[in-house]
Amino acid sequence: MEKVSLSEKFGRIHAYWSPRIAAQLNGQYLKLAKFKGEFVWHQHENEDELFLVTKGSLTIQFRDGDVVLGEGEFIVVPAGVDHRPVAAKEVQAILLEPISTLNTGNVRNERTIADLEWI
Amino acid sequence: MEKVSLSEKFGRIHAYWSPRIAAQLNGQYLKLAKFKGEFVWHQHENEDELFLVTKGSLTIQFRDGDVVLGEGEFIVVPAGVDHRPVAAKEVQAILLEPISTLNTGNVRNERTIADLEWI
Repeated sequence: MEKVSLSEKFGRIHAYWSPRIAAQLNGQYLKLAKFKGEFVWHQHENEDELFLVTKGSLTIQFRDGDVVLGEGEFIVVPAGVDHRPVAAKEVQAILLEPISTLNTGNVRNERTIADLEWI
Repeated sequence: MEKVSLSEKFGRIHAYWSPRIAAQLNGQYLKLAKFKGEFVWHQHENEDELFLVTKGSLTIQFRDGDVVLGEGEFIVVPAGVDHRPVAAKEVQAILLEPISTLNTGNVRNERTIADLEWI
């Protein structure tokens, strides 16, 4: 039974927009990610997605407005809702979503990561 | 689309060992709890359970030894594994588990909370 240190794991992430798996439970992955810059607009047809910011400030753009998440704040993006994460400066965030979730949702492009790696 | 502040929600929790629901996604609840003292030994037959400590130090006792979680550390307790949370001082923790999960797992006693409330 091994515990996991978030800061130790985040310290080993050097690429932006490339979530890494930190835990698996009940068909879900808990992922750790660093963001900087702008991602792509996308949605996840069948999967809700949680973003919990642990460092920095993350803007989640929605079609009807933005939500700005600071440290210790989270939001659940319901399935089927268009969104785009944007970060002016580096952000660390915990993501929670089903194992099946693709980072770019309904969009496939050069930012799609098909094979997620553990960290 | 509403964001949630962990510190704001934790500030409204005044009872120990009484998790409150802060989010629902993909059949899971994200719960917030304060712990102090000793809980009961129990297991969850079919549900994995994540404990992420956000404040203080939480000991999870297992039959073969203890794991001590500090701030920013988490553990996944797999389904079927006996465990007992213990906290010498007040601890704040995020729990993640299926909606069906009962706080005392396979044990029913005065500490069982059948109807979880949102916060």
